[in-house]
Amino acid sequence: MGREVGVALIGQRFMGRAHANAYAKVVPFFDPPVRPILRVACGRNEGRLAEFARRFGFSEYTTDWGKAVAREDVDLVDICTSNDLHAAIAIRAAEAGKAVFCEKPLARDLAEAKRMLAAVERAGVPHMVCFNYRFFPAVRLARELIREGALGEVRQFRAIYLQDWLVDPAFPRTWRLVRARAGSGALGDTAVHIVDLARFLVGEVAEVVGMLSTFVRERPLPDGPGTGPVDVDDAAAFLARFENGATGVFETTRMATGRKNFMHLEVNGSVGSLFWNAEDPNVLWFHSEKDPAAARGFRRIVVTEPEHPYAGNWWPPGHILGYEHSFVHAVYELLSALAEGRNPEPDFRDGIAAQAVLEAVLVSAAERRWVAVAEVLGG
Amino acid sequence: MGREVGVALIGQRFMGRAHANAYAKVVPFFDPPVRPILRVACGRNEGRLAEFARRFGFSEYTTDWGKAVAREDVDLVDICTSNDLHAAIAIRAAEAGKAVFCEKPLARDLAEAKRMLAAVERAGVPHMVCFNYRFFPAVRLARELIREGALGEVRQFRAIYLQDWLVDPAFPRTWRLVRARAGSGALGDTAVHIVDLARFLVGEVAEVVGMLSTFVRERPLPDGPGTGPVDVDDAAAFLARFENGATGVFETTRMATGRKNFMHLEVNGSVGSLFWNAEDPNVLWFHSEKDPAAARGFRRIVVTEPEHPYAGNWWPPGHILGYEHSFVHAVYELLSALAEGRNPEPDFRDGIAAQAVLEAVLVSAAERRWVAVAEVLGG
Amino acid sequence: MGREVGVALIGQRFMGRAHANAYAKVVPFFDPPVRPILRVACGRNEGRLAEFARRFGFSEYTTDWGKAVAREDVDLVDICTSNDLHAAIAIRAAEAGKAVFCEKPLARDLAEAKRMLAAVERAGVPHMVCFNYRFFPAVRLARELIREGALGEVRQFRAIYLQDWLVDPAFPRTWRLVRARAGSGALGDTAVHIVDLARFLVGEVAEVVGMLSTFVRERPLPDGPGTGPVDVDDAAAFLARFENGATGVFETTRMATGRKNFMHLEVNGSVGSLFWNAEDPNVLWFHSEKDPAAARGFRRIVVTEPEHPYAGNWWPPGHILGYEHSFVHAVYELLSALAEGRNPEPDFRDGIAAQAVLEAVLVSAAERRWVAVAEVLGG
Amino acid sequence: MGREVGVALIGQRFMGRAHANAYAKVVPFFDPPVRPILRVACGRNEGRLAEFARRFGFSEYTTDWGKAVAREDVDLVDICTSNDLHAAIAIRAAEAGKAVFCEKPLARDLAEAKRMLAAVERAGVPHMVCFNYRFFPAVRLARELIREGALGEVRQFRAIYLQDWLVDPAFPRTWRLVRARAGSGALGDTAVHIVDLARFLVGEVAEVVGMLSTFVRERPLPDGPGTGPVDVDDAAAFLARFENGATGVFETTRMATGRKNFMHLEVNGSVGSLFWNAEDPNVLWFHSEKDPAAARGFRRIVVTEPEHPYAGNWWPPGHILGYEHSFVHAVYELLSALAEGRNPEPDFRDGIAAQAVLEAVLVSAAERRWVAVAEVLGG
Repeated sequence: MGREVGVALIGQRFMGRAHANAYAKVVPFFDPPVRPILRVACGRNEGRLAEFARRFGFSEYTTDWGKAVAREDVDLVDICTSNDLHAAIAIRAAEAGKAVFCEKPLARDLAEAKRMLAAVERAGVPHMVCFNYRFFPAVRLARELIREGALGEVRQFRAIYLQDWLVDPAFPRTWRLVRARAGSGALGDTAVHIVDLARFLVGEVAEVVGMLSTFVRERPLPDGPGTGPVDVDDAAAFLARFENGATGVFETTRMATGRKNFMHLEVNGSVGSLFWNAEDPNVLWFHSEKDPAAARGFRRIVVTEPEHPYAGNWWPPGHILGYEHSFVHAVYELLSALAEGRNPEPDFRDGIAAQAVLEAVLVSAAERRWVAVAEVLGG
Repeated sequence: MGREVGVALIGQRFMGRAHANAYAKVVPFFDPPVRPILRVACGRNEGRLAEFARRFGFSEYTTDWGKAVAREDVDLVDICTSNDLHAAIAIRAAEAGKAVFCEKPLARDLAEAKRMLAAVERAGVPHMVCFNYRFFPAVRLARELIREGALGEVRQFRAIYLQDWLVDPAFPRTWRLVRARAGSGALGDTAVHIVDLARFLVGEVAEVVGMLSTFVRERPLPDGPGTGPVDVDDAAAFLARFENGATGVFETTRMATGRKNFMHLEVNGSVGSLFWNAEDPNVLWFHSEKDPAAARGFRRIVVTEPEHPYAGNWWPPGHILGYEHSFVHAVYELLSALAEGRNPEPDFRDGIAAQAVLEAVLVSAAERRWVAVAEVLGG
Repeated sequence: MGREVGVALIGQRFMGRAHANAYAKVVPFFDPPVRPILRVACGRNEGRLAEFARRFGFSEYTTDWGKAVAREDVDLVDICTSNDLHAAIAIRAAEAGKAVFCEKPLARDLAEAKRMLAAVERAGVPHMVCFNYRFFPAVRLARELIREGALGEVRQFRAIYLQDWLVDPAFPRTWRLVRARAGSGALGDTAVHIVDLARFLVGEVAEVVGMLSTFVRERPLPDGPGTGPVDVDDAAAFLARFENGATGVFETTRMATGRKNFMHLEVNGSVGSLFWNAEDPNVLWFHSEKDPAAARGFRRIVVTEPEHPYAGNWWPPGHILGYEHSFVHAVYELLSALAEGRNPEPDFRDGIAAQAVLEAVLVSAAERRWVAVAEVLGG
Repeated sequence: MGREVGVALIGQRFMGRAHANAYAKVVPFFDPPVRPILRVACGRNEGRLAEFARRFGFSEYTTDWGKAVAREDVDLVDICTSNDLHAAIAIRAAEAGKAVFCEKPLARDLAEAKRMLAAVERAGVPHMVCFNYRFFPAVRLARELIREGALGEVRQFRAIYLQDWLVDPAFPRTWRLVRARAGSGALGDTAVHIVDLARFLVGEVAEVVGMLSTFVRERPLPDGPGTGPVDVDDAAAFLARFENGATGVFETTRMATGRKNFMHLEVNGSVGSLFWNAEDPNVLWFHSEKDPAAARGFRRIVVTEPEHPYAGNWWPPGHILGYEHSFVHAVYELLSALAEGRNPEPDFRDGIAAQAVLEAVLVSAAERRWVAVAEVLGG
């Protein structure tokens, strides 16, 4: 693909905008070895799409994703659609020999995710899942500290991810509330992030037991009169054991009145601990038993120093980075991998691993029992 | 008992000191309708006991709790011993016609707790369990707000209670680490507090699924060379459904490196939420959807105003109350109930209700399944 | 005075209660070498005084402070009155050969304070000013860190002390709002605390420039109809240079709507910093440049460990101490000094040093210029 | 200038990057009525400049700012240079009929700033100073609340702005440490921001008294061996009275070890208060006396809702915006004003007003007296 990577971006809403912005910003701030060229934007609503393409500087746009994927001048297909389209687009893109960058959750369910992996592996194309939270400098630093042994043996992980956008019962039944399109509710939308971070920071989840809750079971239809049933979870919680013996407690909800994007995670080890909150994302809290007894406490590390991952490419210390920067970092890693001919991280295998945990939670909630992740992953 | 209540205090360690202090402070700050008179202190170590009695102003002391309980001039037996003595002392006290004030957990297990309730009911004596966290002004205010409907329909409860005093593997195997004496580990010691607060704020727990973990399985014996096995949990976590349909996520641990007495609880309702942390106990955080959309947020209420529960009896606004004040308030409620001839709250029935949840968690952890609280409570 | 110290406590309001409580608690928790005996309570309102004496266990009470001070069985006179009585009582007590423990500010003005020091020195009696904030464990730890050089060269100090109890214009004109009785307003009441802490942590103040503000100039009289003028400051702010070259910025106000007892102080040195807030008094924040660059940040030290000043005498780690504990520690230091025949700290010289800073601010505000503390101290 | 605005950007370091990024992002997220076209980038170091121009997509670059300013296709000159060039460039740009957008401080001193204003007024060109902190959504919301009367009568303002990048004595003597080039030190660099915010939120400053400090007086030269003197302030602090009677306390420093970009400001009014911190910039804290007494407290408003200024153009609630977004908002206001043929806000008059306060502080520090802003502003 030379020095340029032609991008087809499918999806123009929240994630479409986050990705388009990332392609624009990665060049000035990271000077990636290959440069993304926004060839074509794709979406359903043509009026909005024209506007989107104009604003973000796409050369062209189309409402036909098949055409977008098939273009000669496209090297990378970036999937920001509703979950029900992930598999079809990813598989078609792989067959067309394109690299695939897919939003989370990788698929509606594990079987679909496996088909996607099979397709990209068969085609030998690079593939990545956009678990953007891995790319916050503070999260990266957390991982480095854990890797270096600053926490000792990791024993306990806990994470909550709280939002409240479904508290109003008049909020419409969008695709995210329909199982056939979303696969699951909060589980696939928000829990998947903390599952991925758990894997990133602690390791593989061995088994889970969970519960799902739906508090508002009928909502107004978005495109007309009347209401429709909500058949996904508003909230999910589960206990876990990791393969390395650590324990995990996970909870997510879209019903935590007053909580906006409150993702909070904590890791306790035998000689240290750390915690992080996505609403104050530049700060990592780190405690070390190696500090003198009388002067020991969680350090509030403002992760904006030149020594910190990614931070040196932006602003001076203390000048806060936001949510969107995580996507820029993700895209930088993607482009670097493409340039070097290796697969980026996290890839579809990571997507599947997270999906398997979700699936185990779904089975657990339905059958009211502990479920091993290996059981749902199968042979 | 007239205007005075003769107190026998059994136990002289952490809880013994907290209770003795509470009796001393309740008089000047709350002027209770009956006045506690510290008749006799009781403990095992006579040297330390003499010192304890002298410092706190007990008239007498004895290492024989049976004698203490039997005294004519004792109206109230206050049990601050290790868990294995709760039942024996409480039952003997009840039989002697004394009011009983017992530290949590009420007993080592549910059966024992039931025997204790039977004894006090048979004797017709007042009984109370010292769930002191109910008596923080902020917790009290939380309950008032929930009762008034400020949160709407309560949907979700989450609580963590994190300590780290067992992180050091050289910490000795005290009685709290021996099942025969403690009943359970973190479950009965710290989880029991958040279970009680869940009941206080949300309602009865219907069913649970949980897991227990022991990270250090062998510890030095406290009174000699060698080590002994730890047969209780270092950490416990469980999911719950309340009878009213709310969900609960609970976690406690003595292995959260860097966390000292970090109890954090949050309640989400349909129109509001609140959270509270025992390490910043004067502050209640409250969010209301009724605030104007652009100026909505969790309010940091410093619960030290004259309008707030108990606070007006202490210091001016913003002058911080501590951990021990919760015991003073508990003792005030106890003495008020005694004076008025009614049973205080929370009583042994509350102790049993909490114990039943713990027992359900134990069964759940052992059998790896959801367990209804009703199942362990039996007929 | 043998093993017992007879105490006459003059004043029964906020400070009277805080001191009475401290005498009660110091015995069980600190076992001081001499034991305070509450001989006599003194106040103006006889009804309330009888109640106060009963609640706190004083043997006797009187509305005549002269009689209280003169008693044979009194060794220590504790002055918790309005500021206008400090000097008269202290001087009479000194003349009677009693140790004197006086609330802050030591006097209404510097001249009065000097007379008080002269009296106690002439009489050769021990003397102490109750700058209670010095006795919070976290403040004590702050000083230890500074002394050890953990901050390097101390360069900058800033402190705010914000309250809001005068925001309501209907709040009555109590004695604290009358210059003849109080000496000054927020300056002597709250600024004096941060001035003392500045001296405790940083050193002597060399010069200041300040401003005083009164936002509500007329208030209802407390004891009858009509209003009276407010002739003291509602708020005060001043800049300072310390003798060691450090800079200081001080602000206090009783008009910071929403702020209750918000004292916040910060010290910056050449290799470290620390800050502390009285509304979260158990926590000291400490930053060290010696931490590794990527893991550097303010540590949130929960100052409740056995290694920490005073903390080990109370509860286990993380169990929060409150405002009143600072008085217990102060009284413990007082009693220890009395037992050892040395003068306690801080003493009247410290009271004068603080008073001199206040006086310099008053002159500065009146004359709109920098004022050297030496200028007002004279001699 | 039609639908496009040709931009010449002078300066390629911290601020050059912040502005270039803002032009790139304003289009997709705000769709301004006129579109900025990056015609030419200008800087001293040609190698770095070529790289800068390439990364940010400038059509051309030049090391000769005169040429850049003179270009026919340039409508707007954006000045991000060291302070010593602001005046020369702005005046030349005005003479060439270009709109001028200038970084803060407007000039090295007030006289220079006045010449700049005269030039743009003479030329009749639009002018704006980049006080970017005005454009944080939370700051904007703060102003709206104040305007609506939510705080009542504003009485007190306090602001600190703490950094630590000069703590290391080996940090070189860059232009910011040379009076001839910078005008002043922390005063013009960081204090100017809180002065502007004070004017934005409270009103005009009437008089000040201040002090300046330089803790490290000699530093290594940046471009060779040896050291040079530091003749600007490392830290500045001043008291102020506003024309409306409110008081102000200001402090800034580059020596607050451990503080990175810690700008904290608070406004107290007769019925409410608010505070904000630039290290947690999405959150505004607001207290209202109108809340019920028992449920009153500072609200933690996460200013990311559609109802909030600018926020709706970005991401869903709770998804954090960073430092750089403030520049995007500033540029949006600039472009909107240009399109509508009105002068943007804040303009050079605001720049002068802030500069006059700084100058008054300089005079005050030199002459050790209160200085009226009118005095330095002159006739």
